[in-house]
Amino acid sequence: MDYTRLFSHRTKYMRASEIRELLKLAEGKDVISFAGGLPDPQTFPVDDLAKIASYIIETYGTQALQYAPTAGVTLFRKTLASWLDNQGVKVNDNDSIIVTTGSQQGLDLVSRVLLDKRDIVITEKPTYLAAINAFKPSEPRFIGIEIDDDGMKTDELEEILKSMSKEDLSKVKFIYTIPTSQNPGGVTMTMDRRKHLLELAEKYDLLIIEDDPYSHFVFEPIEFQALKTLDKNGRVLYLGTFSKILSPGIRVGFMLGDKNLVSMMEMAKQAVDLHSSTLSQYVALEAIKRGVVDKTMDKARRIYRAKRDVMLEALEEHFKDLGRWTRPVGGMFIFVYLYKDVDTKPLMYKALERGVAYVPGGSFFVDGTGRNTLRLNFSYPSQEQIREGIKRLGEFFSAI
Amino acid sequence: MDYTRLFSHRTKYMRASEIRELLKLAEGKDVISFAGGLPDPQTFPVDDLAKIASYIIETYGTQALQYAPTAGVTLFRKTLASWLDNQGVKVNDNDSIIVTTGSQQGLDLVSRVLLDKRDIVITEKPTYLAAINAFKPSEPRFIGIEIDDDGMKTDELEEILKSMSKEDLSKVKFIYTIPTSQNPGGVTMTMDRRKHLLELAEKYDLLIIEDDPYSHFVFEPIEFQALKTLDKNGRVLYLGTFSKILSPGIRVGFMLGDKNLVSMMEMAKQAVDLHSSTLSQYVALEAIKRGVVDKTMDKARRIYRAKRDVMLEALEEHFKDLGRWTRPVGGMFIFVYLYKDVDTKPLMYKALERGVAYVPGGSFFVDGTGRNTLRLNFSYPSQEQIREGIKRLGEFFSAI
Repeated sequence: MDYTRLFSHRTKYMRASEIRELLKLAEGKDVISFAGGLPDPQTFPVDDLAKIASYIIETYGTQALQYAPTAGVTLFRKTLASWLDNQGVKVNDNDSIIVTTGSQQGLDLVSRVLLDKRDIVITEKPTYLAAINAFKPSEPRFIGIEIDDDGMKTDELEEILKSMSKEDLSKVKFIYTIPTSQNPGGVTMTMDRRKHLLELAEKYDLLIIEDDPYSHFVFEPIEFQALKTLDKNGRVLYLGTFSKILSPGIRVGFMLGDKNLVSMMEMAKQAVDLHSSTLSQYVALEAIKRGVVDKTMDKARRIYRAKRDVMLEALEEHFKDLGRWTRPVGGMFIFVYLYKDVDTKPLMYKALERGVAYVPGGSFFVDGTGRNTLRLNFSYPSQEQIREGIKRLGEFFSAI
Repeated sequence: MDYTRLFSHRTKYMRASEIRELLKLAEGKDVISFAGGLPDPQTFPVDDLAKIASYIIETYGTQALQYAPTAGVTLFRKTLASWLDNQGVKVNDNDSIIVTTGSQQGLDLVSRVLLDKRDIVITEKPTYLAAINAFKPSEPRFIGIEIDDDGMKTDELEEILKSMSKEDLSKVKFIYTIPTSQNPGGVTMTMDRRKHLLELAEKYDLLIIEDDPYSHFVFEPIEFQALKTLDKNGRVLYLGTFSKILSPGIRVGFMLGDKNLVSMMEMAKQAVDLHSSTLSQYVALEAIKRGVVDKTMDKARRIYRAKRDVMLEALEEHFKDLGRWTRPVGGMFIFVYLYKDVDTKPLMYKALERGVAYVPGGSFFVDGTGRNTLRLNFSYPSQEQIREGIKRLGEFFSAI
């Protein structure tokens, strides 16, 4: 049977993540990959989770195996709220939490509940590729705001908002931002810019989607507060995840925000997957209670700081004349801007032949720019692989 | 902040499941509920799963906790394919399996990948409410085909297909059917009708979505084969789930069909939740390998047959003059057609006051008919509750 006539219009807007396709190419070869976005499995508390997994089934019994409410297991949502509050992410009286199947589902629900064709989404430039891919099937227009070492340039955002027509302004559905240890940019928004961003949201009546996978294991003693914490008027919908601070495989993410907004996300989720894994939610609940999440964050901080430092050193040695790069205080990525005007996308296949993989940075830019950039992951490869891989990459780009 | 202006057009088509809202009303009251669709927790292999959960983390280690491919854990997909083949669900060389977050996600992916506004979806009448709710955000037109004790009336389907314009025919994206132990209808399609349905699909170049949560624990020794097994030309996309034969809380469902079709589902899923819980997939894998799934099916068969019989007896005693009902060979539901021309939807609130809950059947009809019907779940309440609840319900409808 030929299925072509059956595909919907939006199916055309779907495309496989280039990162995942790349990883497939690299499989089984002697390739050092900086292309992935995997946590270091060393951070996974395997023994603790093995104990927890059987404990929760023994303790909660059939409850841990039965259907759960769409918003999530009530006890888990309560525990999560207190934990977030301890972490400095403010939970207001009017707020509600919904558990999602990874925070990727949060992005998808945002797309469904908020976006129509021709609506406007404002993002950082570059921004998280899988967020773009979650928003794209709704066919919005994207506006990208440049970043520098202090995060999103909110002055540029202000200029753009000022210059927009009333009609276009009414089409802006949200500003999507990863303020802390941005992916892929590797930068963190200063407190001043955070405040400015919230002022602009207030002035122009805008919603902010704060995607925050990394702030809980920042390596440096920097001062910052979540936009969610600074927000006074329910203008921030906060997306979080246990993928990097416990295990990505359990697929536990969440959204925190005003209950009127979150309840629409809940309604959408009901038709999408009824609810996220009950078992995984109890695992995360127990891991919070036993301090396993806190322990994992400490471990992640230590391991990732060391790996980042190794990558920064290697870049200093091999990329000095080739480009500039970010010095992230957290997260899992360094972003490189090459001096030469080359297109890193076709070059990537040649780099693979030299035994090293990266993600061409252009995919992260909503406006087709960024051809001469690349994203490097430091969380997954070993320190030795980082040293050797950056050397290979430096030699590769020097020869171009 | 007022979020109203932010909601997308499709958000209007979302509505909370009436069943779930109903269940909330019944909570904490002395109400016997036939409204749910929960498996009997007695069927859950708690001890086995407690052992399995820690075993897989100890054995597969970080693999069980790491990100997985979007299509699912490879070893699980292979094991699942053999298991399905043993169960009589044919897996062809051209086929591929994708693991979904419950089979609800399968329905959602079908909606996304295949449906545009004004496309046509053909369903049984009545049909599964959550499938309607998964398709609705894409704004298709629905055509409902009546069922009788032999399942979907394929003669009626043929008449309708014959009478359709060429343009409308080209808009038919699929026929959605639950051929075995239909929900809510409680009927099973005969082999003759199954063959007829496939002939029609062939003649009119149509795709069939076969939703099959119940066929693995049919109580009676009846003869049937999955549409997937009878199909020769990749016309059937088969949706399955471990919700009723292991645990719904782990959220493991799957789709099986031609790889060209399944690969589009995989691409859509990537942006939706990256992948389903790795942990849950390893749990299901190990449960298949240890025979725990087979054991659970046997238990479900025994428990549900007994409960169905109790409900049938109670209906015989209390509903004889009130209506007719189905005699399902499997599944978890009996469907009642009242003789009186009453609307069961507003009456449901009064029934709650009398201490009994059901689902008004009208929600299951895509054309607004079925006002005088109700769906009764027999899998969750105890035998005693079934006897008492049907008595209450009989008295209630007698007094109307």
